[in-house]
Amino acid sequence: MTSGPLNHCNACGAKVDFHVPAGDTHARAVCPSCGHIQYQNPKIVVGSVPVWEERILLCRRAIEPRLGKWTLPAGFMELAETAPEGAAREALEEANARIDIEQLYTLFSVPHISQVYVIFRARLLDLDFSPGAESLDVKLVREDEIPWEDLAFASVRRTLVHFFEDRRSGVYLPRFGEIRPPER
Amino acid sequence: MTSGPLNHCNACGAKVDFHVPAGDTHARAVCPSCGHIQYQNPKIVVGSVPVWEERILLCRRAIEPRLGKWTLPAGFMELAETAPEGAAREALEEANARIDIEQLYTLFSVPHISQVYVIFRARLLDLDFSPGAESLDVKLVREDEIPWEDLAFASVRRTLVHFFEDRRSGVYLPRFGEIRPPER
Repeated sequence: MTSGPLNHCNACGAKVDFHVPAGDTHARAVCPSCGHIQYQNPKIVVGSVPVWEERILLCRRAIEPRLGKWTLPAGFMELAETAPEGAAREALEEANARIDIEQLYTLFSVPHISQVYVIFRARLLDLDFSPGAESLDVKLVREDEIPWEDLAFASVRRTLVHFFEDRRSGVYLPRFGEIRPPER
Repeated sequence: MTSGPLNHCNACGAKVDFHVPAGDTHARAVCPSCGHIQYQNPKIVVGSVPVWEERILLCRRAIEPRLGKWTLPAGFMELAETAPEGAAREALEEANARIDIEQLYTLFSVPHISQVYVIFRARLLDLDFSPGAESLDVKLVREDEIPWEDLAFASVRRTLVHFFEDRRSGVYLPRFGEIRPPER
């Protein structure tokens, strides 16, 4: 499902079968040759809302999907890092931006593509940012400058809606939710 | 790193090489035969704190790791489900317990094993629970009955510490953190 083709065993290269192993509840890729079971699991996308005074940092995507659309700095979490480290790495890679992670803010499940977005509220540490390799443009925007019709992902739009609501109320409430088609 | 052996290409079965692809920042398993790149990413463990009046539901593990130790119902998130659905599924599988998910509560990164724990606060819906196949025992415990020395995982212990602190203050605050060796 988003994990790419799974035809051959990672351990020995033989063709795998899909069936529910004894004691399991889900069909898995099982190797009839060496017995290795390869599990497939959802992927985590880590990101942030980098805040500088009244403004937040947005990136314009230089890559598919949603090339040309605006997003918060976010990307697939890597092995051996923490979620906040991943969010800070993505801000650096996509916007050459240094941030301090302040709060676990939104968690959105996107089950049709087996992804979970984890987005932190963060403080932008300086104004020395610029587009990274995956961004066409990076800028600080006020609420009335958000390109609502040109945001890349529902997780980004919903996080920004919550953020500005919460800023008005003065209390930032972590939230979770799910995104189903036709949202994306 | 926790993803099991990665010697052969999932797509075609040829032996893979590890190197940093053009435009990437991390070494990946790249197939020299068909060009497929197989990414490895952290896994999500979803769980809950199921609450019934003054008590919470704990499970005694029937499987390794930490066989015989006590835990909150939790397990690996599956493809095509949401995080709350996964947490509810685990409560059903491990404790035959029906829950309503109420709040995103704790998120712990465990980078040395590339896992992220996502634990929700939940309401236990009835008292008709019992040990599932992966549990030796399931019980409702008050704070003074928590087996603090026999909890399975640091993520569980820290979540319970926060939970009882927050219950005293009357405000449940979502938290994030990281777990490093020798904690586990």
